Amino acid sequence: MQTLGSFVEDSWWFSTDPGQPVLDATTGEEVARLATRGLPTEAMVRFARDVGGPALRALGFQDRGALLGALGAYLSEHVDTLHDASAVAGATARDAWFDVEGGIGVLYSYASLAKRSLPEGNVLRDGEVERLDRGGRFAGRHIFVPRRGVEVQINAFNFPVWGPLEKLAPALLAGMPTIIKPASQTAPVTHRLVQLIIDSGLLPPGALQLVAGGAEDLLDHLGPQDTIAFTGSAATAELLRSHPSVRTRGTHLTVETDSLNASILGPDAVPGTNEFDLYVSQLVDELTIKAGQRCTAIRRALVPASLVGPVVEAATERLSAVTVGDPRRPDVVMGPLASLAQRAEVRARIDELARAADVVVGGDLDDVLGADPERGAFVAPTLLVARDADRDEPHRIEAFGPVATVLGYQDPQHAAKLAARGAGSLVASVVSADARVVDELVMELAPWHGRILVLDATSAPASTGHGSPLPRLLHGGPGRAGGGEELGGMRAVTRHLARTAVQGTPSVLGRIAAQWVPGAPRHLGEHPFRKPTSALQLGDAISAGPRIVTADDIAAFAALSGDHFYAHTNPEAAAANPLFGGIVAHGYLVVSLAAGLFVDPEPGPVLANYGVDNLRFLTPVRPGDALSVTLTAKEITPRAGMPYDEVRWDAEVTRDGDGAIVARYDVLTMVARTWPLEADPEESAPRG
Amino acid sequence: MQTLGSFVEDSWWFSTDPGQPVLDATTGEEVARLATRGLPTEAMVRFARDVGGPALRALGFQDRGALLGALGAYLSEHVDTLHDASAVAGATARDAWFDVEGGIGVLYSYASLAKRSLPEGNVLRDGEVERLDRGGRFAGRHIFVPRRGVEVQINAFNFPVWGPLEKLAPALLAGMPTIIKPASQTAPVTHRLVQLIIDSGLLPPGALQLVAGGAEDLLDHLGPQDTIAFTGSAATAELLRSHPSVRTRGTHLTVETDSLNASILGPDAVPGTNEFDLYVSQLVDELTIKAGQRCTAIRRALVPASLVGPVVEAATERLSAVTVGDPRRPDVVMGPLASLAQRAEVRARIDELARAADVVVGGDLDDVLGADPERGAFVAPTLLVARDADRDEPHRIEAFGPVATVLGYQDPQHAAKLAARGAGSLVASVVSADARVVDELVMELAPWHGRILVLDATSAPASTGHGSPLPRLLHGGPGRAGGGEELGGMRAVTRHLARTAVQGTPSVLGRIAAQWVPGAPRHLGEHPFRKPTSALQLGDAISAGPRIVTADDIAAFAALSGDHFYAHTNPEAAAANPLFGGIVAHGYLVVSLAAGLFVDPEPGPVLANYGVDNLRFLTPVRPGDALSVTLTAKEITPRAGMPYDEVRWDAEVTRDGDGAIVARYDVLTMVARTWPLEADPEESAPRG
Repeated sequence: MQTLGSFVEDSWWFSTDPGQPVLDATTGEEVARLATRGLPTEAMVRFARDVGGPALRALGFQDRGALLGALGAYLSEHVDTLHDASAVAGATARDAWFDVEGGIGVLYSYASLAKRSLPEGNVLRDGEVERLDRGGRFAGRHIFVPRRGVEVQINAFNFPVWGPLEKLAPALLAGMPTIIKPASQTAPVTHRLVQLIIDSGLLPPGALQLVAGGAEDLLDHLGPQDTIAFTGSAATAELLRSHPSVRTRGTHLTVETDSLNASILGPDAVPGTNEFDLYVSQLVDELTIKAGQRCTAIRRALVPASLVGPVVEAATERLSAVTVGDPRRPDVVMGPLASLAQRAEVRARIDELARAADVVVGGDLDDVLGADPERGAFVAPTLLVARDADRDEPHRIEAFGPVATVLGYQDPQHAAKLAARGAGSLVASVVSADARVVDELVMELAPWHGRILVLDATSAPASTGHGSPLPRLLHGGPGRAGGGEELGGMRAVTRHLARTAVQGTPSVLGRIAAQWVPGAPRHLGEHPFRKPTSALQLGDAISAGPRIVTADDIAAFAALSGDHFYAHTNPEAAAANPLFGGIVAHGYLVVSLAAGLFVDPEPGPVLANYGVDNLRFLTPVRPGDALSVTLTAKEITPRAGMPYDEVRWDAEVTRDGDGAIVARYDVLTMVARTWPLEADPEESAPRG
Repeated sequence: MQTLGSFVEDSWWFSTDPGQPVLDATTGEEVARLATRGLPTEAMVRFARDVGGPALRALGFQDRGALLGALGAYLSEHVDTLHDASAVAGATARDAWFDVEGGIGVLYSYASLAKRSLPEGNVLRDGEVERLDRGGRFAGRHIFVPRRGVEVQINAFNFPVWGPLEKLAPALLAGMPTIIKPASQTAPVTHRLVQLIIDSGLLPPGALQLVAGGAEDLLDHLGPQDTIAFTGSAATAELLRSHPSVRTRGTHLTVETDSLNASILGPDAVPGTNEFDLYVSQLVDELTIKAGQRCTAIRRALVPASLVGPVVEAATERLSAVTVGDPRRPDVVMGPLASLAQRAEVRARIDELARAADVVVGGDLDDVLGADPERGAFVAPTLLVARDADRDEPHRIEAFGPVATVLGYQDPQHAAKLAARGAGSLVASVVSADARVVDELVMELAPWHGRILVLDATSAPASTGHGSPLPRLLHGGPGRAGGGEELGGMRAVTRHLARTAVQGTPSVLGRIAAQWVPGAPRHLGEHPFRKPTSALQLGDAISAGPRIVTADDIAAFAALSGDHFYAHTNPEAAAANPLFGGIVAHGYLVVSLAAGLFVDPEPGPVLANYGVDNLRFLTPVRPGDALSVTLTAKEITPRAGMPYDEVRWDAEVTRDGDGAIVARYDVLTMVARTWPLEADPEESAPRG
């Protein structure tokens, strides 16, 4: 039988050891062997740090984002091979869709995040410049830069494609190389994924390596710049937290463990309501998707005590339609668990739960479609009802399979308390259309859960479901759930970056973050609107004015705009306004006059003003005031595939005489990269 | 001798144990005893969680911020007593200023942060609403809410006032109660601080407790909602990381340990330059402030190899003027270390360093002013020069006293490599006026340091110095520095909050975060500008229009504003613009016309428009287009002490016919709380 190779220092590596077999979850046949004895772990870490890291950092955030998009597109062309591999581990087509298509979705999501929100280069600004003196000579700002280490992923068996990809995407975007270590039961699926990624030729050498089997002493070589991302059991998490790399050398560890997630039915959602049906339907789906082997699956169904009967009845009816068998058969709803060891484990946990709860659905499987019930890791969908909701077992014992316990609660406060008894969970759902109940539960659940889904008849048609982590939302939870934070859009990217506060002059702070900072020198010369971005420098500026604002201007503006607000038109009423004390110019008139001062009317590289940010009117303008404006090039954001870029300008409008700042804002423009504009059809096609 | 009380469950508690003595650092006399045997630790944790937490959460962020301000003001009136207490621990007046006034500064900074940036209530929005479907029925958002546990502070001996306060301020602002455990050497100073805080009567019961001595089994009672904030040695940090609360129960631990901070002199900064003098002067200051007992002090002076001689010569001259003795004497520059044990420790480390470096300043103290050099914990300022900069000792051995080692480097790359040999530090400084050197060093240092100070002749007069953490900037560093993040403004507050992703309808997401969310219902009725904030509801809205934009409008606006940009005035040139393809209205005209549609002209509760955020022009407006606008109350931010509040409105301008969105933005207004405006002089005085 084939021993799976590890991918080491840019080539496939094989152990001479015979290794351990991996069995098909349905048939029990050996499908591959895993062997990593003698794996050159130290060389792998060094290769990642010395070759992979520099190669990834030679690209910037933007290019790495594009790479994720290309990888998503490549894998999309090969989903069939990943689905085939998944079936070996017991996944039905629906299960594999969550894993494979879900994983590719994460790549696309991070590609899109990069395009939308990340700069070129490797410096990400964190927050605003903090002034540290009155004179404007000394300030501070925070930046994020890539960590100089490697991320080691230690994955759970249940998502052999999504698991590695949801960790790879933010790490790669951040500029960190990765070493993937899959769980043994599903290593052949992850192995196939890595083969595809390597075959794509998209990643630079060292960006990705694979340990197909035991990690040996890999973690011993990690240090302060490295990260470990772990998904799996609480017991392994404890070991990792005590590992010398984590405990003494500052390796950053993030942990996501299974948890006893609760789904709460609101007291309003009695039989006959949409919400009652939604609740039961979601409960059954979560029980059967991936045979309940999701960290986020519903383990505790919290329902009003009076509704325990109706919920069990409705769920039982739906569960009776769930067919179990060979996951390759289209008429099978639920496949086997990932391994016989998992089946033994789940059966033992059901027995423990049964001490405090009655099994109302479950037991022996009568009918397994197309498979031998003893050779395959099959477990019947199992529903229990707690005899006492406050007993310990349902809040402590997790059966990681198609198993949930129904618990009756007294009132929403009781439901929230029971949910918190899980000691920290990945997700809770609240199914209710009662705003009061929803608001109360969300506030009580929030400190104990990484995600909360509120489901009602309005959101249900679009809901992504209790069990599905989404790339843009946090995945992880406190306490028992491990305390980690994965996904959540940018939140997972910054976990792979190092944050640093830099103090210095505005010039220094501007240079390191590619942004002109107030207080840094301005260059007044040629009108900056005459410069395409290929020539424009940050700090290029124009000062213009004065423009005297007359009473006639204000009256004419009121007439033209239709804005006859009394502070601009009625002297007596304006005098009574506590903020103005007399006629003032419209704020929009002030910015319009400022534009009249700084705009260069003839065609030129500045193509359009597409917006304004952070506009503040700081000093009222009265008839007779003379205004001047200074506009300074602040940021240039390239638009890939377009012949123009985004330029953000700092605008400062002052009152002549005392120099009071009248208004401050950012003006956003599109500026041609060259002038005259080169409309190369190749170049100007929008990317993706 | 007096045994210091612990503050337990809202009263002072004393052990019957005789306890351990604390000695005056200068005279060696016993000044207090510490005893905590029998401390009711479990009751303390329960009291904090069950009494302190709910009391703090009954206030919101705003009120807790005001409380911090009041606490700062109260302590400011009692700085003398804190200075007196500090002298016992060896602090000169300058040393105590960093500790006492520095600590009060942190309280003020967080009070101001709350006022500026935090909402009322206990829900802090994190990022924007994420749309999760096309129909706008299902979305997600992240919120922060207070953790439901207690923060246990474990403080280092060197900052007995600043240390507890820099941890207390963000915890208290976040709504978490605190248990303070000071280090024994300086426990009397922290004890005095806590006495003052308790005497102020400002904090609710349970918000603050004190362990004046050993922590006993306090940590054993912590769980997933609790946090430990530790400052101290790497050895203790290791023990904490292995503690069952941290390893298995999910207690969040943040660690800040000493580090081997480097200060780098640029090759440009030769003798005779301002930067050379700044470098030497800062080196000597950092060596002597608090007798070098700062986690952030300079331990490694990295200078160009050719400048080792001149730097040592200049530093030696300055150090010869440093007087050592009784910290209470005004003619003393540097006092003793905090204890005789520290002196023994520092002497041992100097001996270790001396294996790889020559002591050029230091040795026995000839002259100790007003104290017995043997009874007091005095150590001479000590400067070493490394015989080989690449040897291990200077990058590994930390003498936590007035000790630094000068190392010669070859070029900036070498300097950066040497700095990174510290394996992660709190801070590095770069003293140079050469932009190329500064930019290169900052990028290389960033992943290894929590803070980087760039010093040159421009920033020097305002610089806060290498060793001073600031409330608004991150304090902490990777690897050896502990990996923690303290301060940094909001960054330390969110560490005390739980982050949760909530999914549901726009209505749900709006309600939980006190914000109207697009897609949630709008209430069209009375013009919302007629409603004071006491009557205004989120979602109150006005729709108005259409207003047809004519060619005359555009021409008149160009004439009035002076903005004759060709896209508004020149049909042929406008036709050639790739984004417009013909005459379009000015963006500022569009928002002016929108204001003309939604503004209610007569005096009313809306007093002023003070700004605009996130304005985007999404569809060009051509002559003949008819525009409508919908304005919806989105957020109400109370202004404490003022008779009006801030109201943020969602503005959406659409084109009639196809409904295309022309512009979207937030309008910011001041709106009276009651109408007519009540100008209660008590109420309308701005706070603080």
